[in-house]
Amino acid sequence: MDSARFVEPLIPLASLLALGSLVAFYFWLRRQDAGTARMREVAESIQIGANAFLRRELISITPFVLLVALLLLIVMPGESNWEVAGGFVVGSVLSMLAVYLGMNAAVHVNVRTAAAARSSAARALMVAFRGGGIMGLSITGLTLLGLYGLSLLFGVSPATPGHVHLLVGFGFGASFSALFAQLGGGIFTKGADIAADLVGKIEQGIPEDDPRNAAVIADQVGDNVGDVAGRGADLFESGADILIGAMIVGLAFTPRYGWAAVLFPLLSEAVGAIGAVLGVLAVRGSERRSPLFSMNVGFLATGAFCLLSYYLLATCVMRDVRIFYCLVLGLLTALAVTLLVQYYTGITLRPVREIARGGMRGVATNLIYGFAWGMESAVALKILVAVVNVIAFYLMGGGLAGVLGITAATLGILVMKGIIMAADAFGPIADNASGIAEMAGLGPQVRHAGDALDAAGNITKAITKGYSMSAALMSSVVILFAYLLSAAQLAGVSGEHLSSFVTFGGADPEGMVLRLLRSLNLAHPLNIAALMIGSTIPFLFTSQAMKAVGRTAYRMVEEVRRQFREIPGLLAGRVPPEYSTCVDIGTAHALREMILPTLVGVAFPVAVGFLMGPWALAFYLIGVKVVGATLAIFMFNAGGAWDNAKKYVEEGNFGGIGSEAHQAGIIGDTFGDPLKDTAGPSLHILIKLQNILGITLLPLFYALGLKWD
Amino acid sequence: MDSARFVEPLIPLASLLALGSLVAFYFWLRRQDAGTARMREVAESIQIGANAFLRRELISITPFVLLVALLLLIVMPGESNWEVAGGFVVGSVLSMLAVYLGMNAAVHVNVRTAAAARSSAARALMVAFRGGGIMGLSITGLTLLGLYGLSLLFGVSPATPGHVHLLVGFGFGASFSALFAQLGGGIFTKGADIAADLVGKIEQGIPEDDPRNAAVIADQVGDNVGDVAGRGADLFESGADILIGAMIVGLAFTPRYGWAAVLFPLLSEAVGAIGAVLGVLAVRGSERRSPLFSMNVGFLATGAFCLLSYYLLATCVMRDVRIFYCLVLGLLTALAVTLLVQYYTGITLRPVREIARGGMRGVATNLIYGFAWGMESAVALKILVAVVNVIAFYLMGGGLAGVLGITAATLGILVMKGIIMAADAFGPIADNASGIAEMAGLGPQVRHAGDALDAAGNITKAITKGYSMSAALMSSVVILFAYLLSAAQLAGVSGEHLSSFVTFGGADPEGMVLRLLRSLNLAHPLNIAALMIGSTIPFLFTSQAMKAVGRTAYRMVEEVRRQFREIPGLLAGRVPPEYSTCVDIGTAHALREMILPTLVGVAFPVAVGFLMGPWALAFYLIGVKVVGATLAIFMFNAGGAWDNAKKYVEEGNFGGIGSEAHQAGIIGDTFGDPLKDTAGPSLHILIKLQNILGITLLPLFYALGLKWD
Repeated sequence: MDSARFVEPLIPLASLLALGSLVAFYFWLRRQDAGTARMREVAESIQIGANAFLRRELISITPFVLLVALLLLIVMPGESNWEVAGGFVVGSVLSMLAVYLGMNAAVHVNVRTAAAARSSAARALMVAFRGGGIMGLSITGLTLLGLYGLSLLFGVSPATPGHVHLLVGFGFGASFSALFAQLGGGIFTKGADIAADLVGKIEQGIPEDDPRNAAVIADQVGDNVGDVAGRGADLFESGADILIGAMIVGLAFTPRYGWAAVLFPLLSEAVGAIGAVLGVLAVRGSERRSPLFSMNVGFLATGAFCLLSYYLLATCVMRDVRIFYCLVLGLLTALAVTLLVQYYTGITLRPVREIARGGMRGVATNLIYGFAWGMESAVALKILVAVVNVIAFYLMGGGLAGVLGITAATLGILVMKGIIMAADAFGPIADNASGIAEMAGLGPQVRHAGDALDAAGNITKAITKGYSMSAALMSSVVILFAYLLSAAQLAGVSGEHLSSFVTFGGADPEGMVLRLLRSLNLAHPLNIAALMIGSTIPFLFTSQAMKAVGRTAYRMVEEVRRQFREIPGLLAGRVPPEYSTCVDIGTAHALREMILPTLVGVAFPVAVGFLMGPWALAFYLIGVKVVGATLAIFMFNAGGAWDNAKKYVEEGNFGGIGSEAHQAGIIGDTFGDPLKDTAGPSLHILIKLQNILGITLLPLFYALGLKWD
Repeated sequence: MDSARFVEPLIPLASLLALGSLVAFYFWLRRQDAGTARMREVAESIQIGANAFLRRELISITPFVLLVALLLLIVMPGESNWEVAGGFVVGSVLSMLAVYLGMNAAVHVNVRTAAAARSSAARALMVAFRGGGIMGLSITGLTLLGLYGLSLLFGVSPATPGHVHLLVGFGFGASFSALFAQLGGGIFTKGADIAADLVGKIEQGIPEDDPRNAAVIADQVGDNVGDVAGRGADLFESGADILIGAMIVGLAFTPRYGWAAVLFPLLSEAVGAIGAVLGVLAVRGSERRSPLFSMNVGFLATGAFCLLSYYLLATCVMRDVRIFYCLVLGLLTALAVTLLVQYYTGITLRPVREIARGGMRGVATNLIYGFAWGMESAVALKILVAVVNVIAFYLMGGGLAGVLGITAATLGILVMKGIIMAADAFGPIADNASGIAEMAGLGPQVRHAGDALDAAGNITKAITKGYSMSAALMSSVVILFAYLLSAAQLAGVSGEHLSSFVTFGGADPEGMVLRLLRSLNLAHPLNIAALMIGSTIPFLFTSQAMKAVGRTAYRMVEEVRRQFREIPGLLAGRVPPEYSTCVDIGTAHALREMILPTLVGVAFPVAVGFLMGPWALAFYLIGVKVVGATLAIFMFNAGGAWDNAKKYVEEGNFGGIGSEAHQAGIIGDTFGDPLKDTAGPSLHILIKLQNILGITLLPLFYALGLKWD
């Protein structure tokens, strides 16, 4: 019997363990003290705003999900239309559910973190981290549940291996609703953030999170709907897409590795889910150690468990130790990327210092340096990942097996997803807790504990960013191969001939590979045109996202200024502002603005596929990927570096608060905000959405006989 | 006898006509009145600064040219090393000579334009345009002279068609020195511009070109060494590279079109040179009409002549009227791109208005909108060009012939090069004339005439930008095909089998094409890695260029501030500033900063070629191209739109001068300056430099047997 079958039960068990732990953590958290009446009041405003936003967002998305499901039902070839359309709906729904669970926890945990901070910083850390852990466990648990459940339902088995392709609908659904969630949340959060900073800090000179600022609740809501919900949706979809892509790639390896090659990605995710539970439990906080130390204990616990399990999986299930090396290579890549991101955005290092110093000679020099360092960071990261791809390829001996090496390295990055997501959601929770403490007028020792958590949150943010960048860069290669291998198999190239397709050697007795390669040829103008079009899509998308933030911020700035102008006694602190109007403006704008870019993201690959054929679409997709990834890294790191350059000046360097360098720093930060928190993360999703959509539509292109040969 | 031989003498004759007219215009211009003593004094400062910069630049470049020539001599295979190395030196020298002639004319014409404006606006226009015309004629005349001369020297003929490949050294030389010139000039001009604006306009509140500003002469010098010399070098190299690429592509078509296919690009350039002479002569100025009207007469004269000649060339020499259609398609593309550029950067249109209006809600909204609209413009332009490529491809019936269609469309854009360059150089000349009038204290009527010319110069700037973008986008496809076809021919695929290489059909009896296509396959991880690396190079390069401008501006801001602080009586206008220290700072920084990026630009394709092989290099090159072109368009148009948004506010909109929107507008403009005038144009050159370098090295890769199969 295939050794894979023997360990298969690990998959549902890990899913149940993750979801069960989630429930346990949830009840544990509900039992924590929620603080004073004033704290609960502030928290409730955030809960109401965030839940209202998420509810309206889900309502807005639903008709589009149904419409796309209906279209899939109609256009997909008859033998798979129900499965693809149904999988699409399941993927969308589980993505929304995961996001809802995670964000709902976050908006209840923030106040409890602030309350715990009154007595114990260690306790506060534990509360906040477990709150983040709920998002981490919900996305890993539900991904596994959805993919494994659908595999059973669709009868994916060694007897019918092709049914693996039916899972793509699930990935498409997850990507589709993730793009809405990330865009909507990103537009909301940055519109509010810019307005709060601009009118509050620059014009009125009042501190961050000051209760007199009408945009301050909207800003806090934004942290939850943008950073928590958006990032959760992002990691849910990237997990789903990578796993499905890896399973499809695995199909090509069943002759060599048996069914284990297909199940391996799910087993790897199962290991990650168990590791995440262990990691969240291991973060306990300590009065003597820094919050970062406690979190590192969690990372180490997860990492050690995953490494050990990976070794067993590689040697006992796949029976090829080289796969373990590739997995380790992936983990090391994530680590190296994280270090690079820390160099380019770290507050005491050269890039950030130079950007901050540039501000002493005017805003333009601050902007120019930030732009330049951000671009350089993209180069460093991407060349690193390109080299890792080549190493993983040759580690498995090159050829078709080399593709499995790249896939394994990507899974090696993915395995830490749960704990990374927990640490990521921890950031906005701590941020919110500080805000609540400030607004509820808690004493300085609470604020001190909050600041320590906040600082830790900023570091975990850099880590998760590096992580998600390396995951995105590596995974897009895997998903591209899933596309190419699917297309090749549909075109009739299979088994050993697939080797001839990705290597310089190999046989082609029937001329099939020649036919295929002619179509995948760089020397065809249609392919070049597709590549050119694809390479512009990230620019189009970024442009739309930026304009959306600009419009939202523009309206909200107007509103905050109006309140300061028209509400007597507001600035003196005698009368509270109308927080809810800002929340409403953000909600209305975000929900309206998220629709067009998402539909454009779906329409382009469909149009290219139908007009130029499935092979040109491959070139289109790689165009989206190479440009999108570079642009996203640039935006992440430039935004992060501008943010920290401002903080560096605020710490008293180059003239400190109120100096010319500080004014320049605030402008750089405000400009960088939508780059790093709206456009950048959405681009990550867009790349995968288009790839998985391409794979989904391949059977349709094939059925229509579109320029297939 | 081949009809091409019959018209071949047109090539040297057109070159001599262009160079002869250049001399005639030069003496005509020297005879014009150079104005008052004070005007001549100001002009002389500019001449001294600009000539000193150019001389030192040429001296700095020379050792690198000799070094590269020596390396080529050593490493290139023995049968071609002298030709390639010699062509490289000739290309470099002619590029520098063309730039020197053109810029030298410009710095003598500026003061004569100001002098003529005292009596007649029409006369001023004619003087300025002929001054620009010298650059236009020098680049077309010397390109033709160099390429035709080398063709004769290398014995390029129907008997030895392969000798066409020997011309690549010339293109590489032209690109190599152009990159230095554009980068050095661009860093100088933007460093000075930012410093002059920041300290003068923002801090001291004194007008543009005010003589009390220490950076004002450096700024004027910058217009000449950056805009005039840089753009001249750019168009010289793009002309040379496209012509060589088109001749190499033409080689594949000699079976069908005879030797005419190879000579056709040079004939087309000859037509353009004659058209440019006619066009410059046709611009005569009129007291009743706007300057733009007079210039349009020149464009129309050139356009009409070129169209007619093209029809004759296509029908009588190539004997295929479809080539004429493709040429017309190219002209229409350039026109459409120009209109798009005008939409995205035009002062009264929606994008610019929205950017300007954004400034009313803070700098960040101005920046966000400019960034977003700039990105959108890149999408529009690039999709247009991708579609034009596909149309040209199918206009010739697809397949290999389709590649000729794309080439012809590109030549159709290139033909207007001379007159476009004249109009482009006209801009900085008019700008300098205004500056001289301001500094020499001429009366308001002179300034009024100067402003009219300046406004016309801004429109021609938009036209030439659109033109150079469409040329760059189209030409990179042609040069890529030159690379691929050269590689295929070296690999042994020739004659009718080449068809099989760029179409879905065709025969492959000996399996050669299969071998080739396997190597050019998107599904090989090595190719994907090369594409990933290539796609980051434009980011690396932009980063370096931006940092160089940042450092130069930083130093110059410091110096201008120091002079205002330490020179008593400077602000009162009693003591002049020390202009020369700013010129020296700019020169020293620019010459130092231009070296590393250029060497990196050369080192990367060499490294990729040697380590990953010639086929991966093709993917690398297309990666550079698709990202570089998109990024360059974004930077051009964002910068242009920010510039005009500031002007729009200065015209009295959204609060006018001194308002919040104006402050935001100035910052946006200053940030956009190095994007549009340093990084953007240099990227255009970088793309072609790397492509032509790749073609140059192909025989070496072949001789070394690098992963060829």
